[in-house]
Amino acid sequence: MPAARQLHLNAFLFGAGHHGAAWRRPGSPAGRLGDIAYYEDLARTAERGLFDAVFFADGHSVGDVGSGPRWFLEPLTALAAMARATTRIGLVSTVSTTFGTPFHAARMLASLDHISGGRVGWNVVTSMFDAEARNHGLDAMPPHAERYERAEEFVEVALRLWDSWADDALAPDRDGLWADPDRVRPVGHSGAHFRVDGPLTVPRPPQGRPVLFQAGASGPGRDLAARHAEAVYAVASDLAGAQEYYADLERRIAAAGRDPGAVAIMPGLVAYVGATAAEARAKQAAVDALLPPEQSLSQLSTYVQQDCSGWDLDAPVPELPPLERFGGPQGRYATILRIVATERPTVRELLGRLAAGGGHCTMVGTPESIADRIEQWFRSGAADGFNLMPPLLPDSLDDFVDLVVPVLQRRGLFRTRYTARTLRGHLGLARPAVGAPG
Amino acid sequence: MPAARQLHLNAFLFGAGHHGAAWRRPGSPAGRLGDIAYYEDLARTAERGLFDAVFFADGHSVGDVGSGPRWFLEPLTALAAMARATTRIGLVSTVSTTFGTPFHAARMLASLDHISGGRVGWNVVTSMFDAEARNHGLDAMPPHAERYERAEEFVEVALRLWDSWADDALAPDRDGLWADPDRVRPVGHSGAHFRVDGPLTVPRPPQGRPVLFQAGASGPGRDLAARHAEAVYAVASDLAGAQEYYADLERRIAAAGRDPGAVAIMPGLVAYVGATAAEARAKQAAVDALLPPEQSLSQLSTYVQQDCSGWDLDAPVPELPPLERFGGPQGRYATILRIVATERPTVRELLGRLAAGGGHCTMVGTPESIADRIEQWFRSGAADGFNLMPPLLPDSLDDFVDLVVPVLQRRGLFRTRYTARTLRGHLGLARPAVGAPG
Repeated sequence: MPAARQLHLNAFLFGAGHHGAAWRRPGSPAGRLGDIAYYEDLARTAERGLFDAVFFADGHSVGDVGSGPRWFLEPLTALAAMARATTRIGLVSTVSTTFGTPFHAARMLASLDHISGGRVGWNVVTSMFDAEARNHGLDAMPPHAERYERAEEFVEVALRLWDSWADDALAPDRDGLWADPDRVRPVGHSGAHFRVDGPLTVPRPPQGRPVLFQAGASGPGRDLAARHAEAVYAVASDLAGAQEYYADLERRIAAAGRDPGAVAIMPGLVAYVGATAAEARAKQAAVDALLPPEQSLSQLSTYVQQDCSGWDLDAPVPELPPLERFGGPQGRYATILRIVATERPTVRELLGRLAAGGGHCTMVGTPESIADRIEQWFRSGAADGFNLMPPLLPDSLDDFVDLVVPVLQRRGLFRTRYTARTLRGHLGLARPAVGAPG
Repeated sequence: MPAARQLHLNAFLFGAGHHGAAWRRPGSPAGRLGDIAYYEDLARTAERGLFDAVFFADGHSVGDVGSGPRWFLEPLTALAAMARATTRIGLVSTVSTTFGTPFHAARMLASLDHISGGRVGWNVVTSMFDAEARNHGLDAMPPHAERYERAEEFVEVALRLWDSWADDALAPDRDGLWADPDRVRPVGHSGAHFRVDGPLTVPRPPQGRPVLFQAGASGPGRDLAARHAEAVYAVASDLAGAQEYYADLERRIAAAGRDPGAVAIMPGLVAYVGATAAEARAKQAAVDALLPPEQSLSQLSTYVQQDCSGWDLDAPVPELPPLERFGGPQGRYATILRIVATERPTVRELLGRLAAGGGHCTMVGTPESIADRIEQWFRSGAADGFNLMPPLLPDSLDDFVDLVVPVLQRRGLFRTRYTARTLRGHLGLARPAVGAPG
């Protein structure tokens, strides 16, 4: 009998937690965000919870430094250190395809794969903000379509660079050759965006190729994910939206000639866990209460394009015009409408939801109730697992590992020990042969 | 009374050692060059020897993979891991200014400075080979002058990015701001090669700025070093050459308006240490004997532009035409003439000298005799210290740490404990203020 399908879990580590006010809590790690030991501790916690991987986002502009931490350590250097504080858990770094060359990216990821003994994943992004472009010599971000064309070529070159050393190329013979020159081959790439002769300076990574993650939301993003991603970080605020995304992506993966069953689709998940539902809600309410109201309402005003400064924080959200009558940016507004319709929040609760993971699924409750909802998503074509976005670090990660993981394990949904030593192994992915499509 | 002037020592880690045949020894680490634990062990040895720093070169093309190891792990990721295996020793990475953007480089180096608690140095290079350029979208290396112009601008932008966060910008106030936006300033750079708005995504590094190393040999290289370097990795095969370089660089540093006494000039040093002179020579001869003669003679033929294939390996090097009658590349040929004139080597010994550090100073002898020569260089205007290039790893590093360092310490030339926690501290360099010239 084949092994039962298993959940996959990443721990998406971000600042003092994904809630915008997490750093304001008494005792928060706000002062430790440049301290690698903080991240090592988090990675060890996630490894104790048998997570597939830790996951780092990345950005190339500083953002609003007043409102809270956004970036600090560069993820590849941070993950190299964390590789040595852990032994099994995967290490996923976001690397943008818009600013560097594929040779740089392929080389660092391959090096990190060697350092970690085969535990590296690459979350491919094309970046977003003009402020990022202006740190790398561009006047503004290239148009969306051009970014995705470049990303496609960037990924293809990286894959070929990882294949440029055959698996058996490096076989030091003390009386002969260190490596077989016939098995270390140029890639000879010349395309619209890149020229790369190769081979890579780094022998083939332990995983063959680091695991490709993608977070495709737009059409071109989903197509890029369909062609290349081995795991997907999805955005879905509710079950129906997640099912729709899941079905659409599986269609695209199949259309790209690949096996949809082999690609783990992992929506973001913001979870507040308590021994009782009331305790969980109290954790959420406590951090929501730390949001500076004026600033949050001013941000909300731009999201809903009306003046919210007079709204009563503890009253229900006033009625909002339907999407078709809204003139501003649709994505965030649609999320707000959906949260209001399904959760009937107070204004403060809405601000809290938006401040923690934005449009991502939020679960608040007991370990059993959260495991119920995870299982529901997992069994109803909405998720193969989750990219856990702890609203409060380290607390929410501790809670999930100590309280939710054991429930998932008892239900046979999640591993009770690591059975593999590589991230590919955790995800059930085969090691790609040199030259395999990817 | 001011503290006596002290030697500075870096351990330049490279493959199985700097000798081209080091990997061929029985028991060599040839099979461990992708294993980060190997480098961690070396760094711990260097730290036990109280070295200022470990030092990594870097290159972007694979070279001749048959003849021996050249590159493997990417240095920034490797050093991030090594930062966690050590507590005091500096960590110097070569980063080229020709292929990436200054934002990428400044960000990674700043991140590594946080991870290591202020122990990072940057060896600024402009790279050399067309094969490297062709991995990063160029047809060939830019001309020498253009590379150095770009390097100058690259370094200036990196310095400004490190200064973009004031030292006191990050002061999380749970009831107010995470960082003071008025103390996190754009750099607004727009030059011939780069446009970089800034600020950096990484708060100011613990050292203020990572320490700048440079290895200027050419005129423009020496000038770049004179304007910016805080420590210099020099090439000098003998005392007279080292003195000449030292005096020239000090002149250029003074001409650039800086204090020559504040820049540590550290020639490369290949050292074979033995309990007796005969034992040291035997170590050298043993590895020289592992050089494949045909291949080495063929390489020598290109250096001296005559057919050496019939030369007797154990006979003295035949007479060579003087430099002024030589039509090929001068640098390497001049080194060969100097080695032949001063050391009267056999052909095999010459091949060994060229195979281990090329034109760098080579010392073979007892701990006392090597300490004598080090002291001579140190006291006669030739060196402020050395970038040790162990011909055999880990053996030659162990020998130096266990046998030579104690002699240097007894003579009061070298620290007997670390008195600082940062690389700047080890080198006696002040922490630069934001906006300081550099």
